[in-house]
Amino acid sequence: MVDAPRGHPAPQTRRRSAVPLDLAADVVALTEALVDMPSESGAEGPLADAVEEALRALPGLEVERVGNSVVARTDLGRPERVVLAGHLDTVPAADNLPARRDGERLYGLGACDMKGGVAVALKLAAAAAEARGSLTRDVTFAFYECEEIAGDRNGLAVIAAHRPQLLDGDLALLLEPSGGGVEAGCQGFLLADIVVPGRRAHTARAWMGSNAAHLAGEVLTRLHAHVPERITIDGLEYREGLNAVAVRAGVSSNVVPDECVVTVNLRFAPSRSPEEAEAYVRGLFPEYEVRVTEVEPGALPGLDRAMTAGLVKALGVEPRPKLGWTDVARFASLGVPGLNCGPGDPQLAHTPGEFVSMAELRECEERLRGWLLSQESAA
Amino acid sequence: MVDAPRGHPAPQTRRRSAVPLDLAADVVALTEALVDMPSESGAEGPLADAVEEALRALPGLEVERVGNSVVARTDLGRPERVVLAGHLDTVPAADNLPARRDGERLYGLGACDMKGGVAVALKLAAAAAEARGSLTRDVTFAFYECEEIAGDRNGLAVIAAHRPQLLDGDLALLLEPSGGGVEAGCQGFLLADIVVPGRRAHTARAWMGSNAAHLAGEVLTRLHAHVPERITIDGLEYREGLNAVAVRAGVSSNVVPDECVVTVNLRFAPSRSPEEAEAYVRGLFPEYEVRVTEVEPGALPGLDRAMTAGLVKALGVEPRPKLGWTDVARFASLGVPGLNCGPGDPQLAHTPGEFVSMAELRECEERLRGWLLSQESAA
Repeated sequence: MVDAPRGHPAPQTRRRSAVPLDLAADVVALTEALVDMPSESGAEGPLADAVEEALRALPGLEVERVGNSVVARTDLGRPERVVLAGHLDTVPAADNLPARRDGERLYGLGACDMKGGVAVALKLAAAAAEARGSLTRDVTFAFYECEEIAGDRNGLAVIAAHRPQLLDGDLALLLEPSGGGVEAGCQGFLLADIVVPGRRAHTARAWMGSNAAHLAGEVLTRLHAHVPERITIDGLEYREGLNAVAVRAGVSSNVVPDECVVTVNLRFAPSRSPEEAEAYVRGLFPEYEVRVTEVEPGALPGLDRAMTAGLVKALGVEPRPKLGWTDVARFASLGVPGLNCGPGDPQLAHTPGEFVSMAELRECEERLRGWLLSQESAA
Repeated sequence: MVDAPRGHPAPQTRRRSAVPLDLAADVVALTEALVDMPSESGAEGPLADAVEEALRALPGLEVERVGNSVVARTDLGRPERVVLAGHLDTVPAADNLPARRDGERLYGLGACDMKGGVAVALKLAAAAAEARGSLTRDVTFAFYECEEIAGDRNGLAVIAAHRPQLLDGDLALLLEPSGGGVEAGCQGFLLADIVVPGRRAHTARAWMGSNAAHLAGEVLTRLHAHVPERITIDGLEYREGLNAVAVRAGVSSNVVPDECVVTVNLRFAPSRSPEEAEAYVRGLFPEYEVRVTEVEPGALPGLDRAMTAGLVKALGVEPRPKLGWTDVARFASLGVPGLNCGPGDPQLAHTPGEFVSMAELRECEERLRGWLLSQESAA
């Protein structure tokens, strides 16, 4: 039964005609089916319906729906709980639908980021439900909406705000693309508008005004020359980045523009606080108005924690730093340490040609299944 | 009766409920009434209705409607014809409606550009109709739509394309704001997109891509450093201008943009041809793709022509160069030499605080009326 959290819009009536997902299919076929159910941010409804129906059909899982996010949990009374999570949405299509198999690769929107990871998690949910009697830890599976867009619509943030107990756990594993390896922590994310003022005038008498777009050349040139820092934490190097992601100026084709806004995106090492990140950007542009519109803290890798170290050891891979922002930061803010481990090359995320290796999908499923079902309790 | 030219959309059915314009009112009150009939480009219908009705009420004028443009002509069989013209549209409102009187100034959208000039022309139409028996030249009055936007919707261009005989004449006088003085010829107008390419990537791994916005800093910096030329023709100095009027880049807040487009507007002296103007811009940005989207030739001042010199002499003022592009260039391309002479400070055009001096309105009407009614034929 769906429970509408207070302050959150009531979930849509579920469509009972959802396209069925076959969790018994192999993980490649399941990924392909997920890619072929388009779910750009804000339009995850049909996919959430299908995921919810598939999870409700499994034994031993309590399933809850919040908006277009779905959470399924065992309730075995085990002393520890692991949370596996993945987002259902994708960036906009770029002429990369439907899914297409080419040799050992599966191409298509979201194949890498992150329908491959969602497919692995769904396969693990089926396996955990089947073997629930022998699990040494309780398991939570969270599939959520709106990860690729503004933070306040993020399904995990909505659940954290209204039903945080659904995300309780001792370790969170996000199945974001990490090439099947383990990526620890995540960098912080900041968006800011750098506002360059001018003075409006008719372009036939431009000397009466001051062209804000021309003046913004200095901001862009400074960004071009900027060398991002590389910061090492727990032996991992976090490579920062500062990029203009939008430039907007223009009143009319015969008017000298009186404002040019350069929107910058800073990716910052998790050792910086949001306040420090903000001060860093302001320090680079001291003579301009800087309007911070969004800032999300990073998450420290936390490789010194027993639970985290235990998972890394069980997977037998060398951890790398996570450069993108992921929702491990949301778990970190709930006190749940987190790692990223999922199929797909993270450098392919958001590219029109994204794909996932079929072998990697199968290997990722296999290794995580082995860890999940034969796990040794660290309690 | 309205005649729909071939290839031009049929005019709208005229609303017979047009707000009446009182051409017997003084020119200030008439300007105020025109300002209070909003007519942003593309929405001139109600104002065109009112102008058409007022002109049809005058004796001795043949009135034709083309779209939302209105042409009224005497047909006295005189050996020469003078065309007085003005556009009905304005740039978008900027919190400057309704009209407001403050001392000797009338403020409001279009007060300067160019409802003051339209009011003067309407007063002159009434005077010419009244005194038609003593006119030594035939007179045409043209009030037209869409001057402030893309050239292909310009009412004068539409008439020139489909009913050029309506614009026949030996001298055209545009009542564009010129401070009551005479502005000769006009500069040319060019719009071009300078395209800066990049390579898309996730901002968390920006080094995989190439930020087109950062690279556009060079284009904007070059524009900032550019010193426009000043070119003297017939003793008049035409001051050129090259301005970015729009900058557009941005895919998403986490994507390195793969394209940044800088739209520039060149105002060029009438001694340059459109082809030369285009080559000039390309020469400034040789390493970029330059897409010219619009180019309009200027009009030479032509002060050596007898008709033009005669009008300047009759008005008794020193001619100045016209820096903005005006539709004298369209008349020039029809073989009709033209001058700009109208009330309003051209430097106030397109500014939120535009106004027109009441004294200048009255003086402009008076001087042009004197010239029009007592003109000596140069034939």
